Amino acid sequence: MHFISETVSDGVSEQLFTIGDIPGVLWTPAGATGPHPLVLVGHGGGQHKKAPGVVGRANRYVTQRGFAVAAIDAPSHGDRPQSEEHQRFSATIRERAAAGEPVGPLIPGYNATIAAQAVPEWRETLDALQRLDQIGAAGPVGYAGLSMGGAVGVRLAAADSRITAAVLGLVASDGLAEAAALITIPVEFLLQWHDEAVPLESGLALFDAFASTEKTLHANAGQHRDVPLFERDSSARFFARHLLGGS
Amino acid sequence: MHFISETVSDGVSEQLFTIGDIPGVLWTPAGATGPHPLVLVGHGGGQHKKAPGVVGRANRYVTQRGFAVAAIDAPSHGDRPQSEEHQRFSATIRERAAAGEPVGPLIPGYNATIAAQAVPEWRETLDALQRLDQIGAAGPVGYAGLSMGGAVGVRLAAADSRITAAVLGLVASDGLAEAAALITIPVEFLLQWHDEAVPLESGLALFDAFASTEKTLHANAGQHRDVPLFERDSSARFFARHLLGGS
Repeated sequence: MHFISETVSDGVSEQLFTIGDIPGVLWTPAGATGPHPLVLVGHGGGQHKKAPGVVGRANRYVTQRGFAVAAIDAPSHGDRPQSEEHQRFSATIRERAAAGEPVGPLIPGYNATIAAQAVPEWRETLDALQRLDQIGAAGPVGYAGLSMGGAVGVRLAAADSRITAAVLGLVASDGLAEAAALITIPVEFLLQWHDEAVPLESGLALFDAFASTEKTLHANAGQHRDVPLFERDSSARFFARHLLGGS
Repeated sequence: MHFISETVSDGVSEQLFTIGDIPGVLWTPAGATGPHPLVLVGHGGGQHKKAPGVVGRANRYVTQRGFAVAAIDAPSHGDRPQSEEHQRFSATIRERAAAGEPVGPLIPGYNATIAAQAVPEWRETLDALQRLDQIGAAGPVGYAGLSMGGAVGVRLAAADSRITAAVLGLVASDGLAEAAALITIPVEFLLQWHDEAVPLESGLALFDAFASTEKTLHANAGQHRDVPLFERDSSARFFARHLLGGS
């Protein structure tokens, strides 16, 4: 793990790093020492580790709750080279959209391809983060990710018992129900009631599939990109309940 | 409207009142003057205006947000005489439960009977409350009620445009979908994923039926009585967003 830069702004330290060829970013309360509870944030398809939604979420978690927050570029995203498969997928999506055809059915397969590489990368990243004094190996770890970040997160939470609470959503059950059935940690699961990319029945089926005894579905009116901002605060409270102990 | 008593405890004033033969209670921040945003709380079946869930909710709304909160005993509940129909219904419920038969299918019809009387009673109560200096006629009004209180609230919100935000839930769509389709105010709607009294599909259909552009479904794992306590805080934030103005 190599740290490249540190910037401090409004009480938040932002450190860029690489782990092998994975570019990442770590946000922590500025000047704070000792271990912090950690939340990993997985970005959506076509976005990157410093997309506005990721940064906004990280800022809330750090300033409101004192968490450390880490994000990495998914394969073929952000500062990483795009694979030929990714380029073909992007071209197909553009063609379909231009022809007015639905792109939703293509997404689960693409997400599965990304996740096959992203899950081991997240685990490697978590190994490295937990060696930092700012994080530590003993602390709780949350994961937050929607859409492609949700598809990665379901598989990551199923595979890695270090994740103890997760905010997931905006994904269909296709290819994910089996992993969801392995998950017993508390889950806050987001759906959009009029999602043009995720069939409602399939999203509800995925929520149903989680084996967690503590799980909450938040379904809001609107399309895929219309998740209300107040859901970020809700997720911060969810992580506070489950990662900070106490109430 | 006759006030019977006032008690002040932990910064909350509790005033008992009657309006005709309707017994009610009004909670306000102690010592506060001038109009307050109002939240009406409808209790569940078999409960009453000062059931622990109602009082807990009222305390949060008053102390955390500065709302006035009012509750009344539903027909045949609390301090009110029980109608013959109510006694027959209660006996049938007991017999069915003793025989291990499902009681859920009986509930929508019973709730409809209660609501036919409770909705005009709530409107009369709201008329009286809005004549108080502590409330005023110009302020926003919310309604919160689950189960029987939800079945009353869906019909009340459809009938009375003074209600501008509502927390509803734990009800099936039977007999309520038409009223829900008339509702355009922001709604936070609660369901329990394993509700033994409300079929999930029917609850989801009711959420779908609300015409509101701003609506959020919160569905939690567990049975009818397992609604997590954090949903009370969520409802307080919902009312703060929609009744207090600003963010």
